[in-house]
Amino acid sequence: MGRKKIQIQRITDERNRQVTFTKRKFGLMKKAYELSVLCDCEIALIIFNHSNKLFQYASTDMDKVLLKYTEYNEPHESRTNADIIEVKRGQEKFTLDFMLFSEKEYPETRRGNVTLPSHGQMLQ
Amino acid sequence: MGRKKIQIQRITDERNRQVTFTKRKFGLMKKAYELSVLCDCEIALIIFNHSNKLFQYASTDMDKVLLKYTEYNEPHESRTNADIIEVKRGQEKFTLDFMLFSEKEYPETRRGNVTLPSHGQMLQ
Repeated sequence: MGRKKIQIQRITDERNRQVTFTKRKFGLMKKAYELSVLCDCEIALIIFNHSNKLFQYASTDMDKVLLKYTEYNEPHESRTNADIIEVKRGQEKFTLDFMLFSEKEYPETRRGNVTLPSHGQMLQ
Repeated sequence: MGRKKIQIQRITDERNRQVTFTKRKFGLMKKAYELSVLCDCEIALIIFNHSNKLFQYASTDMDKVLLKYTEYNEPHESRTNADIIEVKRGQEKFTLDFMLFSEKEYPETRRGNVTLPSHGQMLQ
């Protein structure tokens, strides 16, 4: 139930896409809330679904965060989907290198005798 | 390694807070990226850390999303930390009710003989 790895590509089935949207949207807001509390930061999250309905989350007050944003000159870090895909690719390459290295240097690790860090752990 | 359940409250140790911030910030951006692709939506995420440094993510273009936001009248859904905490409490209460009910109606489920849905699964 929702535990296997899925391909990150647009879900074609409309009902499935809607259910996933509702679940993941709440998951994302919850993670944002946790980050804001754990690390004492201010967060604003704006989501337009595919039919342009607006869903928003702000740790405190949306207008306050956006005002602060407009007054800011240059962000310390700015990412888009293209960057995230690149970072993810880099991590997958690392896993592959690690597997090839293990097999060459430590043949006893072949055929699943070694526990690789799961993808989830690596991305933490 | 980061797998046990933690209390959601401000991390007092500065180094730990910094490490958690970096890890969770990337995790959050990755989840936002996944949602944007899977469900074909536009997302903007703005984070100010506790020393007011700006970190931002946008699925496409930040300015485009914010412009759309300013032109929008009333959001379909708007949440803050207070709402998220309330939803979480509701879900915990549900787990408790479920446990009490199971124990009363089906005494054989006592002492861990029944597998409750994990908190993670319930929040999905």
